[in-house]
Amino acid sequence: MIKVGIVGGTGYTGVELLRILVNHPDVELKVITSRSEDGVAVADMFPNLRGHTDLRFSVPDVDTLGACDVVFFATPHGVAHAMAEEILNTGTRVIDLSADFRIKDVPTWEQWYGQPHGAPDILPQAVYGLPEVNREQIKDARLIAVPGCYPTSVQLGFLPLLENNLLPEQMLIADCKSGVSGAGRGAAVGSLLCEASESMMAYAVKGHRHLPEIRQGMELAAGKAVNLTFVPHLTPMIRGIHSTLYAQAPGLTQAQLQTLFEQRYANEPFVDVMPAGSHPATRSVKGSNVCRIAVHYHEHTGQIIVLSVIDNLVKGASGQAIQNMNIMFGLDENAGLKQVALLP
Amino acid sequence: MIKVGIVGGTGYTGVELLRILVNHPDVELKVITSRSEDGVAVADMFPNLRGHTDLRFSVPDVDTLGACDVVFFATPHGVAHAMAEEILNTGTRVIDLSADFRIKDVPTWEQWYGQPHGAPDILPQAVYGLPEVNREQIKDARLIAVPGCYPTSVQLGFLPLLENNLLPEQMLIADCKSGVSGAGRGAAVGSLLCEASESMMAYAVKGHRHLPEIRQGMELAAGKAVNLTFVPHLTPMIRGIHSTLYAQAPGLTQAQLQTLFEQRYANEPFVDVMPAGSHPATRSVKGSNVCRIAVHYHEHTGQIIVLSVIDNLVKGASGQAIQNMNIMFGLDENAGLKQVALLP
Amino acid sequence: MIKVGIVGGTGYTGVELLRILVNHPDVELKVITSRSEDGVAVADMFPNLRGHTDLRFSVPDVDTLGACDVVFFATPHGVAHAMAEEILNTGTRVIDLSADFRIKDVPTWEQWYGQPHGAPDILPQAVYGLPEVNREQIKDARLIAVPGCYPTSVQLGFLPLLENNLLPEQMLIADCKSGVSGAGRGAAVGSLLCEASESMMAYAVKGHRHLPEIRQGMELAAGKAVNLTFVPHLTPMIRGIHSTLYAQAPGLTQAQLQTLFEQRYANEPFVDVMPAGSHPATRSVKGSNVCRIAVHYHEHTGQIIVLSVIDNLVKGASGQAIQNMNIMFGLDENAGLKQVALLP
Amino acid sequence: MIKVGIVGGTGYTGVELLRILVNHPDVELKVITSRSEDGVAVADMFPNLRGHTDLRFSVPDVDTLGACDVVFFATPHGVAHAMAEEILNTGTRVIDLSADFRIKDVPTWEQWYGQPHGAPDILPQAVYGLPEVNREQIKDARLIAVPGCYPTSVQLGFLPLLENNLLPEQMLIADCKSGVSGAGRGAAVGSLLCEASESMMAYAVKGHRHLPEIRQGMELAAGKAVNLTFVPHLTPMIRGIHSTLYAQAPGLTQAQLQTLFEQRYANEPFVDVMPAGSHPATRSVKGSNVCRIAVHYHEHTGQIIVLSVIDNLVKGASGQAIQNMNIMFGLDENAGLKQVALLP
Repeated sequence: MIKVGIVGGTGYTGVELLRILVNHPDVELKVITSRSEDGVAVADMFPNLRGHTDLRFSVPDVDTLGACDVVFFATPHGVAHAMAEEILNTGTRVIDLSADFRIKDVPTWEQWYGQPHGAPDILPQAVYGLPEVNREQIKDARLIAVPGCYPTSVQLGFLPLLENNLLPEQMLIADCKSGVSGAGRGAAVGSLLCEASESMMAYAVKGHRHLPEIRQGMELAAGKAVNLTFVPHLTPMIRGIHSTLYAQAPGLTQAQLQTLFEQRYANEPFVDVMPAGSHPATRSVKGSNVCRIAVHYHEHTGQIIVLSVIDNLVKGASGQAIQNMNIMFGLDENAGLKQVALLP
Repeated sequence: MIKVGIVGGTGYTGVELLRILVNHPDVELKVITSRSEDGVAVADMFPNLRGHTDLRFSVPDVDTLGACDVVFFATPHGVAHAMAEEILNTGTRVIDLSADFRIKDVPTWEQWYGQPHGAPDILPQAVYGLPEVNREQIKDARLIAVPGCYPTSVQLGFLPLLENNLLPEQMLIADCKSGVSGAGRGAAVGSLLCEASESMMAYAVKGHRHLPEIRQGMELAAGKAVNLTFVPHLTPMIRGIHSTLYAQAPGLTQAQLQTLFEQRYANEPFVDVMPAGSHPATRSVKGSNVCRIAVHYHEHTGQIIVLSVIDNLVKGASGQAIQNMNIMFGLDENAGLKQVALLP
Repeated sequence: MIKVGIVGGTGYTGVELLRILVNHPDVELKVITSRSEDGVAVADMFPNLRGHTDLRFSVPDVDTLGACDVVFFATPHGVAHAMAEEILNTGTRVIDLSADFRIKDVPTWEQWYGQPHGAPDILPQAVYGLPEVNREQIKDARLIAVPGCYPTSVQLGFLPLLENNLLPEQMLIADCKSGVSGAGRGAAVGSLLCEASESMMAYAVKGHRHLPEIRQGMELAAGKAVNLTFVPHLTPMIRGIHSTLYAQAPGLTQAQLQTLFEQRYANEPFVDVMPAGSHPATRSVKGSNVCRIAVHYHEHTGQIIVLSVIDNLVKGASGQAIQNMNIMFGLDENAGLKQVALLP
Repeated sequence: MIKVGIVGGTGYTGVELLRILVNHPDVELKVITSRSEDGVAVADMFPNLRGHTDLRFSVPDVDTLGACDVVFFATPHGVAHAMAEEILNTGTRVIDLSADFRIKDVPTWEQWYGQPHGAPDILPQAVYGLPEVNREQIKDARLIAVPGCYPTSVQLGFLPLLENNLLPEQMLIADCKSGVSGAGRGAAVGSLLCEASESMMAYAVKGHRHLPEIRQGMELAAGKAVNLTFVPHLTPMIRGIHSTLYAQAPGLTQAQLQTLFEQRYANEPFVDVMPAGSHPATRSVKGSNVCRIAVHYHEHTGQIIVLSVIDNLVKGASGQAIQNMNIMFGLDENAGLKQVALLP
């Protein structure tokens, strides 16, 4: 059994890690930390966990965390910067769900996150935990930067096109719609039911922190600079991201693109390429680790439209983190991750 | 492996059976029927099942169904009446999620369902599949009538009071709130998002079909006639039933009632009595087979208020059906039913 | 034109006052106060008001408020206690939407609100602003206590029964379901979309502040003590209260009750008694000042069930406040309040 | 008073016409037709209208309709084709909310709607009822084709750019998100709360009927051919369209674009250009006739992003229809249309 610790378990990615891990066949949950909730039973805060765990929140402590085989960080940015190195030094592996180690260029990180990078020394060893790209590196990684929710759905949708150099110089567009859980469990007016339900709005049109992360991944896949316009939208639902991706590539066919996508993801356990003509709905992945993709092509205009949906808390965060753990510890990649999406 | 068939798999209880059964460790799904969708892949209708099953709907056929160990009926009322006997005659056991065998009194059934009872001969062998009451009989049952959704939540909330004869002659009240999935997947105007969301309404105040079923169970528990007013409400959410139960019983204490409920359900894997003062939310059971209960007592007025929540599609239908199957076949009672509720 | 001021305009009852008043034919909005938003344009905070008002929030000031004909308080409890007397002394009338002047018994108020009553001297002149009961007193009132949202829907549902002495000694039950806007615009975790949507839960079962207010009104109508159990529920929608009221009264008929309710409210512009057998939905009053009621009677058991729906922000708060203003100033009672509910 | 008739009043655009017209100061509602609901009181079907109208549905009849000054068609496509000419011949003016007269090219209409055009003779006299473009023609029009919901929001967002020839040859993109009421009141599985809530999906990516309508309007504005990719999305809310529009135009500035939009709509009563940097939410127009627009410019990439929101049932249908009526009859353009959006 793999001994697991979680730093920062009071947010939505924290409870989602717990939801999956309490039923993971190869995991023993050892510790979950929260400074503010020290001593509180996890199941008192999250009653869905009643009967599944007796853990209580405790103050983070390197000795206890260092006794685990792996520690997940489900914390605001900056926390993993401050604590990860000490934990790594005990030999424990770290899987960070925050943005702290996702961006390889320190000045870029500092510009978008508005604070000094707290751990540039260990940044080089961080592996970007997108298994569909970095599976081999993940196996031996000691520090994983779990991709963001938008970046996961956008990259998986664009990768087959970029890797095959199908997109000429152009502006690519990612119009993304996210459920409100992406904003976290913080008590913000904008996330109130009375503010966010029965409404649709774009936000951060001037620039969103996930943009440099997405572009970094896309440029690695393309082997060249990529132009991307990324517009996120707050959508009146709890979970789910729907990314609608636009690119121009004249002279292809629907069949070519369909084959390209199917082959690219043929061996991927968590990417499902739907038949031509499909429209994936976010509810088809609610609670599951699947990214479901459809590719459309308008042959008369050369317009490619990729539809890519995930559950932002699963494939977009906690599920993907556990997928990384499975790979790192040589487990079945889908251990603990077989749940079917909840529909309806 | 237990060979399982499903008759009528195109509704919400059907897809919910599939969601659970495809991950059940002791089950092999053999057949799922639908006359209207004959030949269609189940996963084409319910894309959450893509990658989990290759089954296709087929026309119901006694030979195929009779080759199963157990057949679930997830059909409108009347269908199990017509088909169950033939299947039972092959030696296959039947678990009926419809109302066909829930009510023991034939004229009562006929009055509420407005048609002749189609299988009075096999009705006596039907066991009412509420494990918290009938676990021993379920073990040997060949025909199970899975309780309705409202009846499950209401009975589990009232049982400790009735069995201990704590309620003097009086009118008991069950004010119940159900998500819209209780109305099924039929295309009815009243179930449209634009009609049912952002609104709350009572319905069937004059009388609802679940009333005689609830009263039958409550009277068996009490050993005497029971007066009950039952008012269901359509609530703007997909899943969940919240039953608020009212009874008068002067001279008790909160502690007594708390102990009574805790002891009654101490060994029940799927009934969770919360600490005194709690308010269970339906989301704490969304997607799980748990019934979560809190009992409140106003000592100055003698008013008992029981709050009982379930997921209407799981403990209120498909999960409970599988719980019955587990008991019938000597499996762990929670096999396939360990999922944690999806929160948020 | 009546010159109007609003104290505390940043919450939901504040913006709802504005929504109605900017189109009120007899009103001139003079001032709206907020200490925290001093100088901010109201329409910058509430973009639905763009093009309808150029007002900016200002710090409350007795001179400015005293230059109005009437001042609305849309503030947390305690604020009107502190400021109302000074404003009244200028000759300006006050309509308080908070709970500060609703309860006539000072110790009761202090017990439920957990602080000393800040204005016992002017409490006697406060008129409880339920027009269906106190229309004559409202005409000459200088200080109005606008009823709470739950109290409005519950009292209007029970009044015809209580005034006619139809309810023998018994426990009455009010099972009430409220949209989340009843919790206000404060940034509380429990009001987040991800916490409150797709879920149903009771709260404050041990006792809610609206209980003494409801009981006070019911006892005045009955002319005797009333036993009431009141259980509020948080319902996954923005607006609306659905009160389901239970009482026992053997020996009546549906027709008698129907006539009783219809006659009681025959001349009320904002109470709509629906035909026998109806089930009012909260969406039928969304955005309107109407209370819609249906009364059901089970003749075999003597059970009365009253269904009473309002929009908690209109008839349950701001609309009713304006109805009071119309009566106080001799306007048409429905001036500014003719809007049809938004359906769907 | 203008005498008004409505053909086909049982859908969402029908009830929305009624909601607005019953409070319109210059209108007398004479007749509302429905073959299926003949004799039923409108307020029995739509209880929000109780107390506002005594009208009953009747079978459509040319004499009765011809006695009106204007007749609205709120019908499926094809009905106005069949009936409009006869009504026009009586001298009554016609405002058609369906798609029957929106597209000027008959073969294009026939291709997208899959049936022969039923009224090519009167098509030339139809005026496309977008007041921001055709106000002068609307004044004298006898037959108005009210624009579709998507087309209204997309055209108003693109018009200032097209009319000023700012967009070089390129693919323009309209990524549009619509509430479920856009699908109408028909009982379709895909519009059920349990199917459409808590989910996001694109649809009709291969081609949607509103595409030729949008393109027709854009090409008229541009004076040349326009390339447009239009992807509609079903969004889990009742009302609202959010159109996110993408175009490339290097060398401009945010200030230039802001001025351009503000000047274009400076005298438009129902188009609100928000300050630079804004993100309009659909809830800011819920129930109102306003189109709220923000324009963003990424100066380093030349990317223009226009955000355009409307209520699909008001500015996207019934409100715009009444705006047309006001113009046709020389009334204040905002008569009956002054309602503030319902927020929250």
